Amino acid sequence: MNPREDSITAWFKARSRLDPAAFPIGIGDDMAEIRVGENASVLITTDMLLDGTHFDLNTATLEQVGYKAMAASLSDCAAMATVPLAAVAAVALPPGFGSGQLQELHAGITRAAEKYDCPLVGGDITAWARAHPFAINVTMLSRRAGNVPIRRSGAQVGDDICVTGSLGGSVYRKHLEFEPRVAEALKIAQAVDIHAMMDITDGLSTDLNRICQQSGVGAVVDAASIPISDDARRRDDPLKAALDDGEDFELLFTLAPEQGDALIRTWEGPVPITAIGRITEAAGMQLRQPDGQRVELVPGGFDHLKDWASERQHRRTGNR
Amino acid sequence: MNPREDSITAWFKARSRLDPAAFPIGIGDDMAEIRVGENASVLITTDMLLDGTHFDLNTATLEQVGYKAMAASLSDCAAMATVPLAAVAAVALPPGFGSGQLQELHAGITRAAEKYDCPLVGGDITAWARAHPFAINVTMLSRRAGNVPIRRSGAQVGDDICVTGSLGGSVYRKHLEFEPRVAEALKIAQAVDIHAMMDITDGLSTDLNRICQQSGVGAVVDAASIPISDDARRRDDPLKAALDDGEDFELLFTLAPEQGDALIRTWEGPVPITAIGRITEAAGMQLRQPDGQRVELVPGGFDHLKDWASERQHRRTGNR
Repeated sequence: MNPREDSITAWFKARSRLDPAAFPIGIGDDMAEIRVGENASVLITTDMLLDGTHFDLNTATLEQVGYKAMAASLSDCAAMATVPLAAVAAVALPPGFGSGQLQELHAGITRAAEKYDCPLVGGDITAWARAHPFAINVTMLSRRAGNVPIRRSGAQVGDDICVTGSLGGSVYRKHLEFEPRVAEALKIAQAVDIHAMMDITDGLSTDLNRICQQSGVGAVVDAASIPISDDARRRDDPLKAALDDGEDFELLFTLAPEQGDALIRTWEGPVPITAIGRITEAAGMQLRQPDGQRVELVPGGFDHLKDWASERQHRRTGNR
Repeated sequence: MNPREDSITAWFKARSRLDPAAFPIGIGDDMAEIRVGENASVLITTDMLLDGTHFDLNTATLEQVGYKAMAASLSDCAAMATVPLAAVAAVALPPGFGSGQLQELHAGITRAAEKYDCPLVGGDITAWARAHPFAINVTMLSRRAGNVPIRRSGAQVGDDICVTGSLGGSVYRKHLEFEPRVAEALKIAQAVDIHAMMDITDGLSTDLNRICQQSGVGAVVDAASIPISDDARRRDDPLKAALDDGEDFELLFTLAPEQGDALIRTWEGPVPITAIGRITEAAGMQLRQPDGQRVELVPGGFDHLKDWASERQHRRTGNR
């Protein structure tokens, strides 16, 4: 997913005329839900990962790539607070890739499959006719737990906004090693009434904007509350990294403030949960800075307003 | 799938320790089956199609590619005699691909989705960082019809071998326009007791070998009985084209001879069903030529034995 994708997704969604009795959740969430028989349903997610875009085989091993491809889909299962069931994987192989490479990839897939009890049940192996990069697509099925699957569109005015873990700097390490928050999502969904949830794949600012857009609400985020990861602190602007870097694969969710208080008070970890802001009636997103000033929070790159603009101008003109 | 894939698939299958109660059908068939709740299951298939391998965007439209990607998965649903439920699609876009291209692709996906009542319920859009070709992955779910899903491993000694439609020369036209045999498969499975079935994607000789291998049997195919397509007749060796060309997307199945006779006698088409041979106890595959002689039938390139070898030698040495 990238921001450009949102308008395309909306276009696809508008043209999908799904019967909600057969398809309780359609295009636009982390997974779609498909009714199977009278009292059962499955949820489905599909993710394509490309060498050079989502990983770099010059620095990542195929074992890591296999793990990441599975973990990205497992994170979607978590985003809906559902239980992973099974996965299929399809690969496009560059010339020269053989059984050795596939076995290495399989080791990574299996590591994730066993850890999260979500076996690989099928796949497809194709090869590029010419020298093009490795690609892997994982499709995963999940099932409902005791709770209903959590969607992006349920955020309510006054909700607390919470995240798991810490944010930013994933590119240094975490994007290949992250632990999808499957157990945490189920535990949270069974403890409290979550209104909206997704996993953070394109950065907090972009993904919170998706929840706001789909729920018809706005948000205020407290800059001082955002859990900035150690790796984000290696960046020039750690706060910006925590807001805008992709591939955190943490949970972003909203719930009534008293529920949020209770959750955080009773939560025993080890993955932290942090309240970072509030859902507002006013559309758009704002960032409350440590000095109390509010600035517009723009998906994919927050706007320091004049300060930020003038700082850049200062730099450009050599005034500082 | 390509022949090299068989050994890899066998390797993956050997390492998948799936509980048959939860996963009635695992790796190695056209679809895997996953139990969902007490009395329901879904089947799943995933297929990656690559520009330059499975289609050529210099000559095919994106509408055709969208249709083909769906139809290939629908053909897997047919191969198991199951009812298509829903699909998800993921794409990797070359630089310069935008909403116009995606809308054209969507038109082809939708054409197949509406014709076969199998809506698109989700997807993923990714982009190559550099100039690499378009790729599309479709994953499809299906459900059981009145019959059990038909596997590859059930062929029995003495079975008739049957195919739908006509074979060979798909590359000229059919590979972009084929009609997956969903309705035919369900009709056949409800009329008679099919022992083994798959769809022909890598050519009759290769795919029949898969049924033989997985069933622990052999086969004799009558060369004179093979329904050779008009497009195969454009080839230098039409019989070889019908045996070895890929992407027929026809059904290949085996059943008791009296069942085969009854099926063909009562079948009202319009897609023809033809009995082309017999399952044998002796391992391996043979081709019975019109003169009655039997030659070995090799997956992916049948062997005319001395005749063929000497013909080539004649050509090479200019003796004819």
